[in-house]
Amino acid sequence: MSKPLRLGIAGLGTVGTGVVKIVQRHAELLKIRSGLDIQITAISARSRKKDRGVRLNEFAWEDDPVTLAKRSDIDVFIELIGGSNGPAKAAVEAAIATGKDVVTANKAMLALHGQPLAEMAETKGCVIRFEAAVAGGIPIVKTLTEGLAGNQIRRVMGVMNGTCNFILTKMQAENLDYNAVFAQAADLGYLEADPTLDVGGIDAGHKLAILASIAFGTQIDFAGVELEGIEKITVEDIDHAADMGYCIKLLGVAQMTGRGLEQRMSPCLVPASSPLGQLENATNMVVLEGDSVGQIVMRGPGAGEGPTASAVIADVIDIARGNRLPTFGQPASGLIKPTRAQSLVPAPYYLRLELQDKPGALSKISAILADAGVSIDRMRQYGHDKPTAPVLIVTHKVSPAALRDAMAKLPDTGVLAAEPVSIRIEAV
Amino acid sequence: MSKPLRLGIAGLGTVGTGVVKIVQRHAELLKIRSGLDIQITAISARSRKKDRGVRLNEFAWEDDPVTLAKRSDIDVFIELIGGSNGPAKAAVEAAIATGKDVVTANKAMLALHGQPLAEMAETKGCVIRFEAAVAGGIPIVKTLTEGLAGNQIRRVMGVMNGTCNFILTKMQAENLDYNAVFAQAADLGYLEADPTLDVGGIDAGHKLAILASIAFGTQIDFAGVELEGIEKITVEDIDHAADMGYCIKLLGVAQMTGRGLEQRMSPCLVPASSPLGQLENATNMVVLEGDSVGQIVMRGPGAGEGPTASAVIADVIDIARGNRLPTFGQPASGLIKPTRAQSLVPAPYYLRLELQDKPGALSKISAILADAGVSIDRMRQYGHDKPTAPVLIVTHKVSPAALRDAMAKLPDTGVLAAEPVSIRIEAV
Repeated sequence: MSKPLRLGIAGLGTVGTGVVKIVQRHAELLKIRSGLDIQITAISARSRKKDRGVRLNEFAWEDDPVTLAKRSDIDVFIELIGGSNGPAKAAVEAAIATGKDVVTANKAMLALHGQPLAEMAETKGCVIRFEAAVAGGIPIVKTLTEGLAGNQIRRVMGVMNGTCNFILTKMQAENLDYNAVFAQAADLGYLEADPTLDVGGIDAGHKLAILASIAFGTQIDFAGVELEGIEKITVEDIDHAADMGYCIKLLGVAQMTGRGLEQRMSPCLVPASSPLGQLENATNMVVLEGDSVGQIVMRGPGAGEGPTASAVIADVIDIARGNRLPTFGQPASGLIKPTRAQSLVPAPYYLRLELQDKPGALSKISAILADAGVSIDRMRQYGHDKPTAPVLIVTHKVSPAALRDAMAKLPDTGVLAAEPVSIRIEAV
Repeated sequence: MSKPLRLGIAGLGTVGTGVVKIVQRHAELLKIRSGLDIQITAISARSRKKDRGVRLNEFAWEDDPVTLAKRSDIDVFIELIGGSNGPAKAAVEAAIATGKDVVTANKAMLALHGQPLAEMAETKGCVIRFEAAVAGGIPIVKTLTEGLAGNQIRRVMGVMNGTCNFILTKMQAENLDYNAVFAQAADLGYLEADPTLDVGGIDAGHKLAILASIAFGTQIDFAGVELEGIEKITVEDIDHAADMGYCIKLLGVAQMTGRGLEQRMSPCLVPASSPLGQLENATNMVVLEGDSVGQIVMRGPGAGEGPTASAVIADVIDIARGNRLPTFGQPASGLIKPTRAQSLVPAPYYLRLELQDKPGALSKISAILADAGVSIDRMRQYGHDKPTAPVLIVTHKVSPAALRDAMAKLPDTGVLAAEPVSIRIEAV
């Protein structure tokens, strides 16, 4: 029998606890499948006393994750602390510096520091695995990096933030406004400590940037993601979209074009009957398009103890089996910075304009739209008991640039009572 | 630079040609991703003259695949000949005997001879990879064997024969009877040389048996798959199912129970609004359920040049990267034969009975059903211009055993004008 594979786990929140449970429950199964005895040697977390419902006293305890990462009696350092900087990054660097392989669920750290970390790992002959960082239990990193490795990837799309999808589906199902559902999500513990990470699209943007790097063989460029959150979506937007046969989703799209890499994470209208449109609550879905394979769709739980721990353990088993892939699927030293490109693909857009109730308001708006080349397919003005009138417009296909142009000029009319909202209608 | 990875390809049909195309088109991409120069050294096919639309003259030619498999200048033998026995198996054995790794798309060979081949490969230190054998371009073997390796798998379900799904969706969309669409499928070249492999559910059964082996860590047991084809499905069945909100799919289900391994591949009614119900034409879908991850759904093209070649190349890249998994995800020598179990899970069933038009026929039928404990939820008798009357029944939930019992006794009534048909209604 070979030597065991010894794990050090930093961070014992939901995911860390889930990892401990799987290692304890499936010791025999993991041994048969990986060929090695997978053992937890040492752990580290903020509170030593907290009852997490698992046996921990057989493991060595370190208060400092960096000290844990440096221990000579661990082979794999599992980072489940979170946060792009601070102890998580310090511990990962310490682990690599001392020659350990790393498994992490930390999308923020990878999105912001993935390139130097991957280069460091490469120099030291270590691997960094991060299946749990993107789309929870869905083995999307493996599918893209390995399963579709023979393809030139054309496009990656996905709904990858369960909290946003929970909020949007709950607003629709129960006809509640954004703030009410946001408060429910907070009560349920669905939100990050800084909720902007979720509802601002940042967390999902981190995931998209990671997938784009793997898909297109470029350095991670989170700053190149055009980001828009769901904070401005109203229940009226959702109702109106539903009337037209659409749902609103926080959708990520990354594609390589002749002009460069397009990455955007923003609310979109998608057909209610499409697989993406039917995606409810915290479920995630990722669509991959390759030149040989065509389209592959994967759906599964995007978060939670079991699913995320399942992804962490898959990475551990890969390491035990000797599957030692470069961090982003190809040597990090050869990854180039992508050229950033804004999308040129025309699409219809949904617009919501809150007009002051005075004569000529609509005519001024229409003129701006017409001047910018935005032609109106459908328009609806709801009855109102306020001094302002919501006008909902669906445009014909228009280039994103023309639409942006029009949206920028609308406030100059002086007839808007609120910032205008535009949401792209995506063919998926 | 390391030595190149040299491929020998036996079989240059659709898939083989597709593999050659990817290697030629993406030479640079494959090198970057795999770390090795992937080269085709030698090929073998039935006809040397045929124009396949790809450059082949730079490769050595062997008339005999076994001779190809034995060549000392290839590292990986790619078997795309097909057929469970004959030259395919002989060549794979020759490749392993001479220490080569094998990549194959041959589900029939694996389903019937996978265990001895895996043991042979293990003894010789070779790997056998077969992503292309199941569900075409969907990387389902990798997902199950690696991506979900930390899970005890509870159930595997799937629509995995594109031809059957094409026939069933075409019957529904165009209101055509089975024979008419079968003829169209034959014209389109969608059918195997022996069409029973497709429409009899055998091909899909092979795939299910392979997935079950990986999922549950048991020896492949194709003979243990309860098989039923789509030949008896009529357009009336499809119409009636649609009226009730269902579609008919050739659905495979494998699950491990306390009593043993259940494997069945048979037509089922599934909700028309479910992802499986919405699956059209040759698209495949596989649903995986694990104890930690919950449910993962994968959808993609189940056949065709590009998708299947994509799967073959992924296996080649894995070999180049040094990912050397045991054939079925764990040592073959340790796999045990599964105990076979018939399903005990109750479900509603759809029944179609062709009754002779004589008094008391329905009462005799009803009595048999009642005696067997099969209670009727809905019944419909269509108008008819024949001397026999079709009666369509939906039962309440009933155990498969009770249903089989009733179906076996129905002919004794002497009032049936044709063999009775029963189709399980599956909650998916």
